[in-house]
Amino acid sequence: MTWTLAARTRKMTSSAIRDLLKLTERPGIISFAGGLPSPAAFPVEAFAAACDKVLTAADARSSLQYATTEGLPALREAVAASLPWKVDPANVLITTGSQQGLDLAAKVLIDPGSRILVETPTYLGALQAFQPMEPTVVGVASDESGALPDDLKAKAEGARFFYALPNFQNPTGRTMDEARRVAVSEAARQSGVPILEDNPYGELWFDAPPPAPLTSRDPENTIYMGSFSKVLAPGLRLGFLVAPTEIHHRLVMAKQAADLHSPSFNQRVVAEVLKDGFLDRHVPTIRALYKGQRDAMLAALDRDMSGLGVSWNRPAGGMFLWVRLPAGLSAAALLPRAVEKGVAFVPGEPFYAGQPDDRTLRLSFVTASREQIATGVAALAAAVREAIAELPAAQRDAALAVA
Amino acid sequence: MTWTLAARTRKMTSSAIRDLLKLTERPGIISFAGGLPSPAAFPVEAFAAACDKVLTAADARSSLQYATTEGLPALREAVAASLPWKVDPANVLITTGSQQGLDLAAKVLIDPGSRILVETPTYLGALQAFQPMEPTVVGVASDESGALPDDLKAKAEGARFFYALPNFQNPTGRTMDEARRVAVSEAARQSGVPILEDNPYGELWFDAPPPAPLTSRDPENTIYMGSFSKVLAPGLRLGFLVAPTEIHHRLVMAKQAADLHSPSFNQRVVAEVLKDGFLDRHVPTIRALYKGQRDAMLAALDRDMSGLGVSWNRPAGGMFLWVRLPAGLSAAALLPRAVEKGVAFVPGEPFYAGQPDDRTLRLSFVTASREQIATGVAALAAAVREAIAELPAAQRDAALAVA
Repeated sequence: MTWTLAARTRKMTSSAIRDLLKLTERPGIISFAGGLPSPAAFPVEAFAAACDKVLTAADARSSLQYATTEGLPALREAVAASLPWKVDPANVLITTGSQQGLDLAAKVLIDPGSRILVETPTYLGALQAFQPMEPTVVGVASDESGALPDDLKAKAEGARFFYALPNFQNPTGRTMDEARRVAVSEAARQSGVPILEDNPYGELWFDAPPPAPLTSRDPENTIYMGSFSKVLAPGLRLGFLVAPTEIHHRLVMAKQAADLHSPSFNQRVVAEVLKDGFLDRHVPTIRALYKGQRDAMLAALDRDMSGLGVSWNRPAGGMFLWVRLPAGLSAAALLPRAVEKGVAFVPGEPFYAGQPDDRTLRLSFVTASREQIATGVAALAAAVREAIAELPAAQRDAALAVA
Repeated sequence: MTWTLAARTRKMTSSAIRDLLKLTERPGIISFAGGLPSPAAFPVEAFAAACDKVLTAADARSSLQYATTEGLPALREAVAASLPWKVDPANVLITTGSQQGLDLAAKVLIDPGSRILVETPTYLGALQAFQPMEPTVVGVASDESGALPDDLKAKAEGARFFYALPNFQNPTGRTMDEARRVAVSEAARQSGVPILEDNPYGELWFDAPPPAPLTSRDPENTIYMGSFSKVLAPGLRLGFLVAPTEIHHRLVMAKQAADLHSPSFNQRVVAEVLKDGFLDRHVPTIRALYKGQRDAMLAALDRDMSGLGVSWNRPAGGMFLWVRLPAGLSAAALLPRAVEKGVAFVPGEPFYAGQPDDRTLRLSFVTASREQIATGVAALAAAVREAIAELPAAQRDAALAVA
């Protein structure tokens, strides 16, 4: 072959999740694997009205023209106004989905070999976005409230940033509580480590809003990333970031080189949809929908998984919950058996920067209906039961003893 | 500051053109600077009808959902069918504008210090897209027919690729003729250098289509990039690339990490617009429009610039033409004087990978109307006349002697 590939391609991997999605897309499989928002939550009529308005406006043609890299002023202002701390629209950058924010931050902040810190486990898409800049990725020990401040401090030296997803994290569904936010923010500041805060799910709370973002506590040392994918629709690929002026300037240059700007048409349509407090009316319907589905999944797990040595958390919002299998079982090994029984999930392994916990797995409760959730969890429990039954006797007893 | 920037940011520059556009956006300035397609050419009604159709279809919600990284199958098939050599839709990747194709190719093919070859001059946006991967960029000597095959061969050793824009090049407007394509293709093959072929303007021919793409001569050793920005509208940010299977696979992984996928809604809308041979009816109207504007600019140049020692080419398509000032004048120095007289252009300097020719400048003939073109060229000629008058006598005589 004439081609010589860049060294970084040896570490590039396709998302295990996306490859898996292809395998589990066959009819009849109930999928808890994908992170797909419920299509029922997409405001189709509002989009149709906005498209019509934008394309019949006097300046319709400008919505189809090239535009500034920073983004549509009206949309940047709407983003700034929506955030719970004082944000100058000049510090907002509209991105092609919040995934692009990760790519741009990596380009601006990571040299080959740079140390970066992530939660344990962390969002797989972030690991993939950082990878082309060839960092050394270090996982900070974490519990159900997020990263442990002492371990963050212990690993901070020379770190370019700490990447955190404090609200209803992907993959675990866990949320960093107020006390932990205070401690993590303080630990990062003391150690001189900037924070990359990713918040795609923050609006999807079920009973009470999560605590204030890390960024609001130290905006000069944080890049904040948000998305319209979960509150409007992912198919528009619109997200945003907020960064301190000097960093914002570099991110804009990186974005200009990456795709010039995000689609001007989509920005106009979303700015139109956002008018008159649309999200204040729309997002509560998503919260109610997803809360019902989380409840259905927790009820099914309580009913079908008890006594099997399986543990799981009870997320207060978002799209995912996190399951841990009994000792001796591996989520990756369980998957084909589950698919055979008609249900799919994502093994936890690829979400770990360091040593993975191969007993973990992620369940999405937002794509399948409540009925499918009941059927799918029953199938998953049957698969677990089978796998336990095949364990050597001593291991089997140990697994079940936990329950 | 807590932040440590990646070394690559020291070389990142904002596009001189985009910064300039901001300066020249003040009312009353006739701009030949931007590469903005004429808004008159945007098929607004067709987009409105397509948006309506997509959002009222039975599967409307899927157009707002996450989608595969490779792109919408119907759009990949339409792209493959539109190209003048045999292309398998499996080798097509839909990108967020063709600019993203450059970013992805850079990630997959460039290591820090890798040698890459470009035309002289070359598309500035490509230089910016390659830069974050820190290549050593080498300009291949070029004439009005494109790169010189002997110089390509002489500089080929170890080069990761040769980047070429054979049709109505940005910035020069020049086209690689058939004989040169044969020779360049042969030189690249003999030297073992893959080609990155960029073709955003190929459909915008005025009298006859350009010769067949370089890619059609050696698809296994070429990545081909195209765009919907110039034949439909840039505000949708949709482009595409075609790559050999193994390279395609890597580009898909790089894209997944960069923005997951291009907007599914935009892909559906464009696939809808493309149906029933829409481009066969629509593109001829753009050709006629731009040809008229090119003719207006050539007529104005012939009328106002003769006798001033200024030379220019006569592009057979596209959006730009290339001007060279007489010895002693610099395009960058001329610019403020021209803006003062109410006209803007882009100095040629930033388009050179190596030593720039500071007498060159780029004029776009597609954004301004024919009347504005006449007024703007007259203003530009007045600025040139003034600048020549201020030259020392000997230099002035030398400048005018060329005419």
